[in-house]
Amino acid sequence: MIEVNRAVASAETPGRRGPKGPRGEVADRILSAARASFGAVGYAQTTLRAVAATADIDPALVTYYFSGKPGLFEAALEPPEGLRDRVKSAASAPLRERGRALIEAMLAQWEDPDFAAIFRSLILTAAHEPLAMERLREVFTGTLLAAMSETLDGEERALRASLVSSQVIGVAMARYVWRVGAIAELDAKDIARYIAPTIQRYLSEPL
Amino acid sequence: MIEVNRAVASAETPGRRGPKGPRGEVADRILSAARASFGAVGYAQTTLRAVAATADIDPALVTYYFSGKPGLFEAALEPPEGLRDRVKSAASAPLRERGRALIEAMLAQWEDPDFAAIFRSLILTAAHEPLAMERLREVFTGTLLAAMSETLDGEERALRASLVSSQVIGVAMARYVWRVGAIAELDAKDIARYIAPTIQRYLSEPL
Repeated sequence: MIEVNRAVASAETPGRRGPKGPRGEVADRILSAARASFGAVGYAQTTLRAVAATADIDPALVTYYFSGKPGLFEAALEPPEGLRDRVKSAASAPLRERGRALIEAMLAQWEDPDFAAIFRSLILTAAHEPLAMERLREVFTGTLLAAMSETLDGEERALRASLVSSQVIGVAMARYVWRVGAIAELDAKDIARYIAPTIQRYLSEPL
Repeated sequence: MIEVNRAVASAETPGRRGPKGPRGEVADRILSAARASFGAVGYAQTTLRAVAATADIDPALVTYYFSGKPGLFEAALEPPEGLRDRVKSAASAPLRERGRALIEAMLAQWEDPDFAAIFRSLILTAAHEPLAMERLREVFTGTLLAAMSETLDGEERALRASLVSSQVIGVAMARYVWRVGAIAELDAKDIARYIAPTIQRYLSEPL
């Protein structure tokens, strides 16, 4: 059982929200090392000392920036904010064009190597840690729920969001995590073209 | 680098192909413990001693049945044979009905808890081990390639198989591995109904 101090974790950490500069860089290096460790060995086996060594900084700085292991874990699991904004913006497209807008937004986000690294780590960490799994759930269904038509009732919104997420998860896994098949090789714009009609059907066509 | 003795690994192991009975049960218990360990901690951190302890048998039996760690790893990664057979049978359906046949075959296979456990372990192991990743690639694209229309040229077959696998992987991850959203709750027959038109489009409709 992982006890995470949410009050600590939701406090602003310089590396994520603070000003750019040396402080932010150090926090980012710590987070990057932490994500690699949580993804590879899970929460229990991760030590602040090892994370500090990978980040090449003094262990005291990990505590200074993240208050301790629970705070570091929360910060490492936080999905990059870009995704939510991109999906929100795609969700403002007219319903009949939203399929294309959504898959393009997802692909644009994943093509950013920093985002992809964070996401891969979240997926690997979720294999060990229920809290990471909860975050993935929030990202894939919570975020997508907001993109559904406002005219649907709750149950159908949840069903359609889940169908959309099943296709988006598959593209993300095949292209960015497993790197398997033609879908790992194609240009993102070609993938968007092939996948958009599927997303559109899940969004607005009869099921 | 994992050196796997393929000659040893492809030798028949009583637990998988041999007669049912006490010998098969022991081999299956070893395999089940091995899959859990490879999935959780990867190849390097897995010891025959720990696998034997989990399986509650003498460590010498692991060597007797699987020749050593490389042979045990190969056996643990072997996808259950049922999948290939089911996909082959679905692939013999007329092209216009093959989308439905394929997704039903995949779901039927995953609904078997033994298969699902093996597959989950393969997916977790693939996060650490390139050889496991290679097996996943074979399963998802190799197996599905055989279900494509014979009239397509090679490049289009590969593209369409990859699109099919992107949807199948997403359903498998969302329903059986992450257990997230409506798709984790629905009856398999409802999922087949919602997903079949997508598979059919990737199989035989204009892209």
